[in-house]
Amino acid sequence: MLRGGTFNLLVGGPKANWPADFAENIVGPWIGVDRGTLRLIDNNVQPVAAIGDFDSLAAPELQRVRRNVKDIRQSQPEKDFTDTQMAVSVAFNDYAAERVDIYGATGGRIDHFLANLFLVLEPQFKAYASQIRLIDKQNTISFYLPGHYTLEKEPDKNYLAFIPLTPIDHLSLINEKYQLHNEPIPYPISFASNEFVGKTGEFQFDTGLLCVIQSCDTYEARHE
Amino acid sequence: MLRGGTFNLLVGGPKANWPADFAENIVGPWIGVDRGTLRLIDNNVQPVAAIGDFDSLAAPELQRVRRNVKDIRQSQPEKDFTDTQMAVSVAFNDYAAERVDIYGATGGRIDHFLANLFLVLEPQFKAYASQIRLIDKQNTISFYLPGHYTLEKEPDKNYLAFIPLTPIDHLSLINEKYQLHNEPIPYPISFASNEFVGKTGEFQFDTGLLCVIQSCDTYEARHE
Repeated sequence: MLRGGTFNLLVGGPKANWPADFAENIVGPWIGVDRGTLRLIDNNVQPVAAIGDFDSLAAPELQRVRRNVKDIRQSQPEKDFTDTQMAVSVAFNDYAAERVDIYGATGGRIDHFLANLFLVLEPQFKAYASQIRLIDKQNTISFYLPGHYTLEKEPDKNYLAFIPLTPIDHLSLINEKYQLHNEPIPYPISFASNEFVGKTGEFQFDTGLLCVIQSCDTYEARHE
Repeated sequence: MLRGGTFNLLVGGPKANWPADFAENIVGPWIGVDRGTLRLIDNNVQPVAAIGDFDSLAAPELQRVRRNVKDIRQSQPEKDFTDTQMAVSVAFNDYAAERVDIYGATGGRIDHFLANLFLVLEPQFKAYASQIRLIDKQNTISFYLPGHYTLEKEPDKNYLAFIPLTPIDHLSLINEKYQLHNEPIPYPISFASNEFVGKTGEFQFDTGLLCVIQSCDTYEARHE
């Protein structure tokens, strides 16, 4: 059984928001979440595990899931934990994942996206916050607990955003284009469209949880 | 000069997430935010006002904006307020809007989306929270300050989500499929995939700010 390293999750958001050629370009084992499992199989990826109630799958689709995935965890349609939460737990607890990258989390239903964005605020996941990312074709979303950090710029991303998801004390953006110095942040806010100066950006804060997004515009955003 | 009623804003998110035929189907005056202004004109909508730095527009594009819009507020590219914030202020303060519906807020850069989602938490906009909505083809996002409410189901939406954006006291979901009773909510969380039982849903809470989303799956989400 595969253990350690980065595990990738595919959840149910629209294909249009996936990174290009993600099935070929992204290394590491995949876990399918509900219909995401079928989409992985359709993209010639054999998931190591699948989590979901699978109640939206037709019988032949469910057959394909059963033939292609060894470790299937069938959840109840009405339950206290979402399939994505279960999949994140399985990755960290059963597969000893060091990082979990979640794809398919954006672009469709906003209640689903926000459930994934706010997942790291829940007590059972908070300790894993810095090991969880949400990734789509324009955005890499990461999470930080209090501390001092040096972040590396992703080559294809131009914009950098700092987004306290809780009140935060003493937020400092040290060497970015727009800086802050020991700022108290009383409520969630998106400090969007900041930029790296050079290849890295330093920041620090004392309490709460900070979301950081590296993003780029698409051709369509500039020209459509 | 038009005053009162609902004002619609078009901001810069991808067309793919706009409601179908929105330019024909949505009544009321439009305000364009930056490149959104040009997109309105391209869809045969004459905006009553336009807000933006317009620095991404080519000279002939800027000409078209100038020819088509009487009330143009040119913002500075590096400023303390976003163009969307300025547009919301203009709608409420200068046009006496009773409601502001924001389109084009989803689907692209997540830092932009979250800036729009969290806008109602800022002191200058909080009092307007219940008059602001974000709307795309799958989601109607509304905001509530403490109180007791009866919400009407939108005919084309199946799902209902309750999303405290701050800590909230005594959250009760009174007659929805999944109920809560005087629940204390300590951090932002998305209670997704709830449903109406009948045509209305009652809820109440004592402190903080609650986001409510009515949403639907797309054909693609179920079958692609």
